Amino acid sequence: MAESWSSLDNSEPNFRPLVVIELAKGTKKETIDWFTKRIVDRKANGGAQLLVKPLIVENGDENTYLVGASHLRLLLGAETVGLVKECGDNSMRTFTYSSRKTFKDFADDNHSFLTMAECQYIIKHELENLRAKDEKMIPGYPQAKLYPGKSIVRRLLTSGILVQIFPLHDREELKKLRHSWYGRVKVGYQPLDEIRSYFGETIALYFGFLEYFTFALIPMAVIGIPYYVFAWEDYDKYVMFAAFNLLWSTIILEVWKRICAIMTYNWGTLLMKRQFEEPRPGFHGVLGVNPVTGREEPVYSSIKRQIRIYLVSLPFVCLCLYFSLYVMMIYFDLEQWALDYHEENGSNFSSLMLFVPSIIYAVVIEVMNRIYRYAAEFLTSWENHRLESSYQNHLILKVLVFNFLNCFASLFYIAFVLFDMKLLRQSLATLLITSQILNQFAESLLPYWLQKRHKKRMRKRMSSPKAESDLSLVEQVSLEKEMGTYLGTFDDYLELFLQFGYVSLFSCVYPLAAVFAVLNNITEIYSDALKMCRVYKRPFAEPTANIGVWQLAFETMSVISVVTNCILIGMSPQVDALFPDSKTDLILTVAFVEHLLLAMKFIMAFVIPDKPKDIQMKLAKLEFESLEALKQQQMKLAAESLKE
Amino acid sequence: MAESWSSLDNSEPNFRPLVVIELAKGTKKETIDWFTKRIVDRKANGGAQLLVKPLIVENGDENTYLVGASHLRLLLGAETVGLVKECGDNSMRTFTYSSRKTFKDFADDNHSFLTMAECQYIIKHELENLRAKDEKMIPGYPQAKLYPGKSIVRRLLTSGILVQIFPLHDREELKKLRHSWYGRVKVGYQPLDEIRSYFGETIALYFGFLEYFTFALIPMAVIGIPYYVFAWEDYDKYVMFAAFNLLWSTIILEVWKRICAIMTYNWGTLLMKRQFEEPRPGFHGVLGVNPVTGREEPVYSSIKRQIRIYLVSLPFVCLCLYFSLYVMMIYFDLEQWALDYHEENGSNFSSLMLFVPSIIYAVVIEVMNRIYRYAAEFLTSWENHRLESSYQNHLILKVLVFNFLNCFASLFYIAFVLFDMKLLRQSLATLLITSQILNQFAESLLPYWLQKRHKKRMRKRMSSPKAESDLSLVEQVSLEKEMGTYLGTFDDYLELFLQFGYVSLFSCVYPLAAVFAVLNNITEIYSDALKMCRVYKRPFAEPTANIGVWQLAFETMSVISVVTNCILIGMSPQVDALFPDSKTDLILTVAFVEHLLLAMKFIMAFVIPDKPKDIQMKLAKLEFESLEALKQQQMKLAAESLKE
Repeated sequence: MAESWSSLDNSEPNFRPLVVIELAKGTKKETIDWFTKRIVDRKANGGAQLLVKPLIVENGDENTYLVGASHLRLLLGAETVGLVKECGDNSMRTFTYSSRKTFKDFADDNHSFLTMAECQYIIKHELENLRAKDEKMIPGYPQAKLYPGKSIVRRLLTSGILVQIFPLHDREELKKLRHSWYGRVKVGYQPLDEIRSYFGETIALYFGFLEYFTFALIPMAVIGIPYYVFAWEDYDKYVMFAAFNLLWSTIILEVWKRICAIMTYNWGTLLMKRQFEEPRPGFHGVLGVNPVTGREEPVYSSIKRQIRIYLVSLPFVCLCLYFSLYVMMIYFDLEQWALDYHEENGSNFSSLMLFVPSIIYAVVIEVMNRIYRYAAEFLTSWENHRLESSYQNHLILKVLVFNFLNCFASLFYIAFVLFDMKLLRQSLATLLITSQILNQFAESLLPYWLQKRHKKRMRKRMSSPKAESDLSLVEQVSLEKEMGTYLGTFDDYLELFLQFGYVSLFSCVYPLAAVFAVLNNITEIYSDALKMCRVYKRPFAEPTANIGVWQLAFETMSVISVVTNCILIGMSPQVDALFPDSKTDLILTVAFVEHLLLAMKFIMAFVIPDKPKDIQMKLAKLEFESLEALKQQQMKLAAESLKE
Repeated sequence: MAESWSSLDNSEPNFRPLVVIELAKGTKKETIDWFTKRIVDRKANGGAQLLVKPLIVENGDENTYLVGASHLRLLLGAETVGLVKECGDNSMRTFTYSSRKTFKDFADDNHSFLTMAECQYIIKHELENLRAKDEKMIPGYPQAKLYPGKSIVRRLLTSGILVQIFPLHDREELKKLRHSWYGRVKVGYQPLDEIRSYFGETIALYFGFLEYFTFALIPMAVIGIPYYVFAWEDYDKYVMFAAFNLLWSTIILEVWKRICAIMTYNWGTLLMKRQFEEPRPGFHGVLGVNPVTGREEPVYSSIKRQIRIYLVSLPFVCLCLYFSLYVMMIYFDLEQWALDYHEENGSNFSSLMLFVPSIIYAVVIEVMNRIYRYAAEFLTSWENHRLESSYQNHLILKVLVFNFLNCFASLFYIAFVLFDMKLLRQSLATLLITSQILNQFAESLLPYWLQKRHKKRMRKRMSSPKAESDLSLVEQVSLEKEMGTYLGTFDDYLELFLQFGYVSLFSCVYPLAAVFAVLNNITEIYSDALKMCRVYKRPFAEPTANIGVWQLAFETMSVISVVTNCILIGMSPQVDALFPDSKTDLILTVAFVEHLLLAMKFIMAFVIPDKPKDIQMKLAKLEFESLEALKQQQMKLAAESLKE
């Protein structure tokens, strides 16, 4: 019944399904045959040499396929993608099939040498690199054009024949992971290595950062608590807090780079070579010749893109920013109205009303952020960037600028135009807490609840209610097929970024912010874990060596926070009292201290090495070895040439 | 008479001397025999496989040797050092002997494929990499210890047996270069490519930077001239000048990176792989095992070095800084005294006396800078850094900080403590002009004069006065042996760095500074060229891809200049008049503008790509090709492995 198409690896006794391919309903037989043939075909013939099996469901509609690969094929694929693994002598090296025996835990019959996430990443890579040879179109679909070298899977996706590709969950592993991650009540670190081997490096690094950031906030939170408990209102205490905060925020960002280097070194991704970047799936243009690769591929004029960016996207973003400021002004009108109302009536109800504008505004901000996000995605996609990385950078820039203004403009206005510290503290608290609650709800709990309801209905349809582990493969696949897709760590990092802003920008006014941030992050870890394990399809692993542009974003925020905190301190009556004669001296002193702090920050960032000594040593050792090997080779060649 | 030691390359008909080795007088025969044998020995036996000839002088003292190499040996050496050359298809590629036919201008009988500077660099590299095998000491000198892997030449140098190694000038080439460089009166660019093939990339890049910087200053100078001609004293014009200056200084530094990338791409050094760095000659310590290389070599505890740096060097530097400030205060006392004297007498003499303190101070600054330089070199060498690069960084940091304070402290004091703009302008002019005159004199003209006198005496001794081109090899070598050694581009860059400071830090007060800078740099090009061609021994070529730490130094200076110029403008009466009611508003506005400018600067530096589009494309193409080659290789292997 379950027929394998692989003509080559019949020797493989047990087919282990790793990746699911869902084709559109009613895809032509001719197309399916061609596609599956290409997947199982020999490498030498331009195939991917993987294994494919159709998933037989009862109603007989064959549109879902399972992809696997022989153990040998996966090992060769690991070399192709450049995986880095630990050797017997504890050093990390790029895996090659010929040197496989030197690697730790390698044995020809040890099928767990590669983690399941790695196997799935390899299969994804091989599928995406399945390229058209001389086909002019996808058989059966003349409108889906192909040209030599075009990725077949990407064309299938963009023409709608391929609905989705996703890796299968491993019920056993997932259960274990869930248990050690959030299944039991415990105090301690997350099982980052297990998360990494199940979900890949990008996601593990996010959870690593989230955990690190939470721990890093704890000292700030601890120092912040007495301010609330003893109701310290004197500014000299706030000055102390702010000074600590500034130093702290620089140090934690520098230390993170080192911790990140240690983690990614042990995961092997620090050493992984960058792969050549292919055009992103959505990229389109007229066929031309790529000057770098010399291959025929769609080409889109850079000038056209620049025009779209500067004449459409930029004005649109500015308009949105203006709109956001406009909404902010409405909020202040509302605030004033509530204040007037309270003064007139003075009832309990009216004092409650004081909080209403802030809460409404916080909700509106969240809503605007989300709507803007869609607009930004649409615009950036319309800008037609050739590379995924360039697309991501433009998207992140658009979203960051708007979110920053949207979230913090009102606070800046209150602080530096209205000079109302009491209102600032109150707004900060309302914004922070409301946005945290909304986020937790919208990101994890709501999808979890929807997913649960959906699952229940599915179960009912499947007649016999079973425990999760007893589900058949068919049932598991049809369940996972319907799960939502995790869209990457962008939103999660953005949330942390804004939180960092709330905590650091006005830290000397509201020291309790760090406490709320810590509390939020602890629940965030659990709700994000829940989201990854229960709500979404398993995502493909993505090797990564750092948190990329977010490091820069956090560092920029910490520079801005130096400026804001210095101004806030300069405005405090206590500091004011130190300069009774002249306000000029006060401002000059504050400006001087600010420049000093900024200079110190840059020097610290420059002086603290980005990688710990021992990682540097290990990297130097690897570099030395490869240089030595090259030299030996040249020496041999030289000796031979000179002998002739 | 002239006997060649090379047992291998007897086929080489014409020995071309490239490098001179001077041993100490009275070096033991046993040592000489061992050393020369190692130089000519086969690669397989651990030799350098070069050619050696003694230089026979009349008094018969054989202590100078000429080193050359066969054409084949040099080509193989070019592969070892990783030279990058232009291919037939105009792309730059790493030279390998096996692919030699694909390179432009390559022919087996074309001995000018490698420039003489490249050949000399290769020989230097091969000599320095001549390593001890099982020798425990240098034969004949039991106190000069060796251990396996120790560079023989470095030990010979540190134990004083080897006096110097230097590359020979090529009289013919040098004459041509001199002619096209400064021999005729012409307006135009320097022959940078010729300079590069004669002196190597580091020196060519310095002259390239000097030329670029001079051109870049011209707009500033042109705008500055009317200020002097029309005696514009109104500050709104100064504001315009300063604004232009700030924008300009950012742009020229960013553009330089791009020009530098174009130049070094065409020279091949942009693509050259970094070689593994050996310990510097002066490094000493007890024998231990290097954790990176696993080799036996001297090891020096990092903690001991830290102690030396922080407990000796740092306090010493601080003391010097304090002393420099003390001298500055004396200068102000003198200045005051001269002013009083002038007021009392009011004669021509007394008005001339007004300039005396500034001139004395400028001379004292130069003298202090030079003395401090020696102290810094001594201290940094005593800190016992393992790597030359780390030594250089610590030295540069020490020297830069002191020079900056020494040169600019008085100007800062006048500007921001005394608020005396007239004195500032006068001091700036005196300092700038005096230091330029002193530099030109001390760096080029004095050595040139000394060298000329020395040459004359040599000629007299050599009985027959000849034209330079007719000198015999023996005479040429003995002339060059006595020439001074060029100590690197450090001082030249430092001079430009300080000049950049004079021009940019207080630009809105003294727009004429740029004019003097341009004039100085034009003569500087000629006097530096003279220095390189006439005064010093030919230096070994050093491949380099950028101006390194100087880029950072110049950028830091331009950040500081934003701050100083903003303050100066804020202090001007015209700007003051714009805020008649409150000085506070003025300061806040200035601070705001300053932050805006700084933010703009950082954004500009971030947005402008460091390499021009076409260089980026060429680099991407090379990377793509090497990745493709790797993939092809893996595919072949995979196909084979799967077939088995």
